[in-house]
Amino acid sequence: MLYILDLLGVTIFAITGAITAGRKRMDILGVVVVATVTALGGGTCRDLVLGAPVFWVSNPLYIIVSTLAALATFVYVYFGKPPLNTLLVGDAFGLAIFTIIGCQKAIQTGTSILIILVMGIMTGVTGGMIRDVLCGEIPLILRREIYATASLSGGLIFVILSRLGFNESFVVIISVMTILTVRLVSLWRHLSLPVYKESSEKKS
Amino acid sequence: MLYILDLLGVTIFAITGAITAGRKRMDILGVVVVATVTALGGGTCRDLVLGAPVFWVSNPLYIIVSTLAALATFVYVYFGKPPLNTLLVGDAFGLAIFTIIGCQKAIQTGTSILIILVMGIMTGVTGGMIRDVLCGEIPLILRREIYATASLSGGLIFVILSRLGFNESFVVIISVMTILTVRLVSLWRHLSLPVYKESSEKKS
Amino acid sequence: MLYILDLLGVTIFAITGAITAGRKRMDILGVVVVATVTALGGGTCRDLVLGAPVFWVSNPLYIIVSTLAALATFVYVYFGKPPLNTLLVGDAFGLAIFTIIGCQKAIQTGTSILIILVMGIMTGVTGGMIRDVLCGEIPLILRREIYATASLSGGLIFVILSRLGFNESFVVIISVMTILTVRLVSLWRHLSLPVYKESSEKKS
Repeated sequence: MLYILDLLGVTIFAITGAITAGRKRMDILGVVVVATVTALGGGTCRDLVLGAPVFWVSNPLYIIVSTLAALATFVYVYFGKPPLNTLLVGDAFGLAIFTIIGCQKAIQTGTSILIILVMGIMTGVTGGMIRDVLCGEIPLILRREIYATASLSGGLIFVILSRLGFNESFVVIISVMTILTVRLVSLWRHLSLPVYKESSEKKS
Repeated sequence: MLYILDLLGVTIFAITGAITAGRKRMDILGVVVVATVTALGGGTCRDLVLGAPVFWVSNPLYIIVSTLAALATFVYVYFGKPPLNTLLVGDAFGLAIFTIIGCQKAIQTGTSILIILVMGIMTGVTGGMIRDVLCGEIPLILRREIYATASLSGGLIFVILSRLGFNESFVVIISVMTILTVRLVSLWRHLSLPVYKESSEKKS
Repeated sequence: MLYILDLLGVTIFAITGAITAGRKRMDILGVVVVATVTALGGGTCRDLVLGAPVFWVSNPLYIIVSTLAALATFVYVYFGKPPLNTLLVGDAFGLAIFTIIGCQKAIQTGTSILIILVMGIMTGVTGGMIRDVLCGEIPLILRREIYATASLSGGLIFVILSRLGFNESFVVIISVMTILTVRLVSLWRHLSLPVYKESSEKKS
C-alpha cells in the first residue's frame, strides 16, 4: 500500500510542478523536468541524508509516472483550464503523502523519533520548495497559512500510533488525513499560527 | 578524450558563472565561488544520486581549472567587454558537453536507458540552474527556447549510437554537435516547442 | 572544543535563519524549518560530498539546538526588536565558525589542501545561501562586501598554522577571529575587492 501511495504522491506533486512551470510558459520538456524535480526532490534529499540508495535510480517507474503525469497535465491545460486551486490542493495531498512516506522510510533505518519527524517534514516540503524557487514563486512554506505544522502533526500521529501497535494501513490513512485536514482547513479559513511582528504592526 | 571534454565543459560553465556573477557586481572571490558551483554542480548531483564518489574531491584539477577560468573571465571583462551572447552560447556548449559526460558516467554503472538519459539531463542542466537561482536570474530552462529537449535529443543519439557499436569518439562528437545545433538554432530562430496556454492567449 | 564551537555555530546560524524567515511573516514552525535548514545546510552538503554520514542524523542534539534557538528568536522578536545588524553580525560569526569546522572535518579525511579550503568555504557559505534563496533575499555572497574572501583567508591560516604544529585550540581561535575581523571590518567600512565593470561604469 505504501508503494501505491508513493506513486500517487509522485503523480500529484508532478501535476503541481507541471502547473507551476506551465504558468511560466516553459516548453513541454521543460515542464516535464520541473515536474520530475518536484516529484522526486524530497525523496532524493531524504535518501541522500539517510545514506540509502536513491529510490528512483533502481526503479524507473517513478520517472515514468512523473513524466506521464506532467505530459497529461500539459495537454489538459493546453486545451482547457485546470480547476480552481488545483495547485494548492494538489500540493496539500503531496505534502500529506510524502510526509508519511518519509517517516516510514526513516523508521526502517531504526533511527530516533526526532530524526523520523525531520525526515517526514524534509520529504514532504523539499519538492515543493525546489519547484517554487526554480519558478521564482514565493515558496508555500513562506506564506501565512499553516504548512510545516500540518506536516509535523501528521508525522507525530504516525509515530505515536505506530508505536502503539495499530495496523499499518489504518495508521497511514489516519495520519495522511490529519495533514490534509489541517492544511486544507487552514487554507480555507486563512488560519495561521502566531506570526512575527504582529504586535508591532498593530501599533503602527 | 572524455576527460579533456569534461575539463572543457568545466571551463566553459565556469566562464558563464563568472559572467553572471560579475553582472551582479560580486567581488573576485565571490565570482570564483559562483563559477565553481556552476561548473561542478551538475556532476556533483549526478555522483551523489548514483552513489559514486564525487568526481572533484579526488581530482583537484577540476577546481583549479574552474578557478582559473573564473579569474581569467573576471580580468577580461574588467578591462574589456565580453563578445555578445557569450553567456547563452557558452551555456549551450556546457549543456552539450555535460549531458554526454553524464550519460557516459551513468552507462558505466550499468543502469537502464531511462536513468542514463535522466543523468545526462541532470548533469547538463543543474549547474546552470543553480547559477541562475543564486544570481536571481530566470533559469534558462524556464525561457521559451528549446533547452531540455536539446539535452534529451543528444542523450538519445548517444545511447542509440553507443548500442549500435560505433566508435566512442565518433559517438561523442555527433551527440555533442546535436545538442549544440538544436540549442543554438532554437536560440537564433527563437524556436520553441508547444507552450502552455498559447490557445487561451489567442482568444483574449 | 570543536564540538561546542559547532553547536555555537548552529545556534547562531539558526538565529539568522529565524530572523530572515520571520521578516517574511512565516508561522512559528515555518521559521523553525528555515532556521534548521540554514543551520544544518552547509554541514550536510559537506558530509554528502565527502561521502561521510550526515552529522546530525546520528546526533539529534543539533536539531534540538537549532529548534530551540529558532523558537527563542521568534519569541524575542515577537515581543521586542532585535538589535540592529543582528542578521549581518550573526551571519559573520556563523561563517567564521563553520568555515573552520568544515576545514577540520576535511582534514580528518586526509584530503589535499585545496579540498580542505573548498570544504571550509562550502560549509561556511551554503547555509546562508539556502536561507537567502528560500526567503527571496539577495544572498550575502552576492553583495559588495568581502564575504568568500574572509572565509578563504581564515581557512588558509587554519591550514598553515595546523601544519606548523601549533596547539589546536590556539589555531581555531586565531583563524575564527581572522574571518570575523575581515568580514566585520569590510561590512563596517564597506570594503570590497575589485568588482566587475567598475571601469566601464566610470566612463558612462
